[in-house]
Amino acid sequence: MEPAPAAPGPRLGDSRGAERAAASSSLNPTGAEAQPRRRAPAVAAVLPAGGSGERMGVPTPKQFCPILERPLISYTLQALERVCWIKDIVVAVTGENMDTMKGIIQKYQHQRISLVEAGVTRHRSIFNGLKALAEDQPDSNLSKPEVVIIHDAVRPFVEEDVLLKVVTAAKEHGAAGAIRPLVSTVISPSADGCLDHSLERARHRASEMPQAFLFDVIYEAYQQCSDYDLEFGTECLQLALKYGHINAKLVEGSPDLWKVTYKRDLYAAESIIKERISQYICIVMDTKEDENHVGHHLEEILKNELNHVKVTSGALCPPCRDLEQIILEQCYNYVCVNVMSFDFEETRRLLNMLKESNLSVLYPVVVISVYFLDYKSVPFDQKMENLMQIRDYAKEVKKRNILLCGLLIYYPQDEQKLQASLRQGATIIATLIKERNSGLVGQLLVA
Amino acid sequence: MEPAPAAPGPRLGDSRGAERAAASSSLNPTGAEAQPRRRAPAVAAVLPAGGSGERMGVPTPKQFCPILERPLISYTLQALERVCWIKDIVVAVTGENMDTMKGIIQKYQHQRISLVEAGVTRHRSIFNGLKALAEDQPDSNLSKPEVVIIHDAVRPFVEEDVLLKVVTAAKEHGAAGAIRPLVSTVISPSADGCLDHSLERARHRASEMPQAFLFDVIYEAYQQCSDYDLEFGTECLQLALKYGHINAKLVEGSPDLWKVTYKRDLYAAESIIKERISQYICIVMDTKEDENHVGHHLEEILKNELNHVKVTSGALCPPCRDLEQIILEQCYNYVCVNVMSFDFEETRRLLNMLKESNLSVLYPVVVISVYFLDYKSVPFDQKMENLMQIRDYAKEVKKRNILLCGLLIYYPQDEQKLQASLRQGATIIATLIKERNSGLVGQLLVA
Repeated sequence: MEPAPAAPGPRLGDSRGAERAAASSSLNPTGAEAQPRRRAPAVAAVLPAGGSGERMGVPTPKQFCPILERPLISYTLQALERVCWIKDIVVAVTGENMDTMKGIIQKYQHQRISLVEAGVTRHRSIFNGLKALAEDQPDSNLSKPEVVIIHDAVRPFVEEDVLLKVVTAAKEHGAAGAIRPLVSTVISPSADGCLDHSLERARHRASEMPQAFLFDVIYEAYQQCSDYDLEFGTECLQLALKYGHINAKLVEGSPDLWKVTYKRDLYAAESIIKERISQYICIVMDTKEDENHVGHHLEEILKNELNHVKVTSGALCPPCRDLEQIILEQCYNYVCVNVMSFDFEETRRLLNMLKESNLSVLYPVVVISVYFLDYKSVPFDQKMENLMQIRDYAKEVKKRNILLCGLLIYYPQDEQKLQASLRQGATIIATLIKERNSGLVGQLLVA
Repeated sequence: MEPAPAAPGPRLGDSRGAERAAASSSLNPTGAEAQPRRRAPAVAAVLPAGGSGERMGVPTPKQFCPILERPLISYTLQALERVCWIKDIVVAVTGENMDTMKGIIQKYQHQRISLVEAGVTRHRSIFNGLKALAEDQPDSNLSKPEVVIIHDAVRPFVEEDVLLKVVTAAKEHGAAGAIRPLVSTVISPSADGCLDHSLERARHRASEMPQAFLFDVIYEAYQQCSDYDLEFGTECLQLALKYGHINAKLVEGSPDLWKVTYKRDLYAAESIIKERISQYICIVMDTKEDENHVGHHLEEILKNELNHVKVTSGALCPPCRDLEQIILEQCYNYVCVNVMSFDFEETRRLLNMLKESNLSVLYPVVVISVYFLDYKSVPFDQKMENLMQIRDYAKEVKKRNILLCGLLIYYPQDEQKLQASLRQGATIIATLIKERNSGLVGQLLVA
């Protein structure tokens, strides 16, 4: 069978990539005719997602557990679909979760996804995914790839780098998989529940995901394998070895490849995601020219206090090109500095830009509207009543996954006290961005 | 050598425990004379804590990484020392961390801890700990235990239950260790980095901690073992097998036994700890008698919204016995309801009780001081100026690890609107308790 027509190929990096591709053709373990082609392989991915989540101790299957209100599997799909050379992504879900999965694909605007029905075991689900990719399925839009990636729905942090490594190695060796060092020693128990022997930790590895295979290798292995394999097996690399006689290439993966298994893993995943989307903060200034603008002071202090975070500034003066660019760069944190006004005009313009951009479809966007006041000379008067409207704005934009808070920063004449106020303000901004908790939207905090 | 004199023994549960103790005496694998004694064994614990934390990707060794500002190892020590039948806890730390460790013991008031110098490997550190427990150390206050627990400094969630299981099994079998099912398939690579074979997941287990040994068994094993074992070994059960010919009893552990290894594990540990200390909330009422008291409404709503959380109420009317009892029960969350007043008298009395109790030594205590106002008829006036003093109180008690916030809840005449206000207040209270972030102390939030 001919491989599928050319697809956007992996970025193999010019000549070195071409060499490898040529080398892998000549090493093609399927025995297919070695052609002197230099194009990258057509790649698809299969995700078994039929699990029940029993180890999690929660009723929802773990791939559907929410992280920042979005199901875990959506993060994994996002990680795969942003890799442009993965042409098709086939997800195997149980019949009862089919509608849930369709809803997720629609809500989070996932692309290139096909759904198949999961089997009762992991291997059967993968087999169903492979069958859908095989050319002999008449009712399918999918075409048979040269290489297929198999990944877990519950490993959301897979990077393009490791995907490329396993695909490249699979093209050369027929099969490849990510591995990690063992964290615990592995032992073999005897029948009476005592230690029989322990394995030398340095000589063993944990087999992780992603794995990749020449499609024909793994599809033939699944076609040949026994019911026992399909029922009790856990390891695709083992099938390639047993039925295709292929010793898979092992590729060292990063710690982030771990599998979300227990409730604590959900906590860890949430913290990692929160940390990642907190690494870029945009200070939106209501005026651009003045270098002594207090917004610039705040920007400097944020840069000092959050020294791992990229802090930039943009202005709302039309045509707002820099701000549009920052939104395109997926900045999820905005500090809208209002020096001259005590109203929501600037904030509303920012919120409208964010709403139009659809940025908050995947992650909650934090917007903090900052005002300056001298508490003694401007007590809680009409201006404050204006600001209390923030509750209504916050309620409205929360529906769009935008978390709006207000922050009042004292602006004393004394330079040292002002610095202290601004530092306190920066601490509150950092907390709101880090926690990203919808329970505090609409609050007016005071620094 | 005679076992050490009787120590507070494990709660073996009356007759069944006595039977086991008798049985284990007769099965004593050290060959010591089987005595018809029914007392529980003297138990000590050894914690190797000499690791460098390289896998964590941070400069601080992982056992000293802070969780809610307290080092990880302090949580592990707390888990061991609350088990009254563990007589001594020997911690092996490197020379350069000796002072850090002494500071931790003093600051968090740890008891029954002895420090020894760590070796360059895990096995050498454990051996140093065992030497300190052996009776032939003339300058030691420690006495040789019958059973020794070996645990990791970076497994903070060990429960008394599993400690008792491994100790009981060690007394019977000579050695015992906690195990867990494998999360990933384990494979064996060939020399050229390809798959040689994969292990059947169901036939293997991950060896976790705690483990327990008859002291003589493990001490003799360490005395006999080779330099190679001490340098490259990772598994104490393996030493007991190799040198003591003892097949350790394997005890199924809970998922919480996992080892904090990567940065994500610190995130997970922090979330677990935050969740645990958020399970008990005390509503402190300023008046007890009135059943229509709005504090009771708030209590009901909190009970409904947080249905896994124990919500109770206490009063500050002297002699405050119920409140003292609640503090003794280690409640870390207080909602101080002020209906009649707009000052901090009640809150200050609560804060003083908390300070005297020393409750906040181990965990940050959240105190939320709640006031009710009708925004329209009581605009931000003198009363508000009073309440702004919360910033100063919050700053002061934060030094004592108490996180104080204020919460203003609208109190409209309309019953339905009041319910909405109270629900909003409950959401904010739940957020502050869950996040436990010191960045928001001193804020006056509005529901």
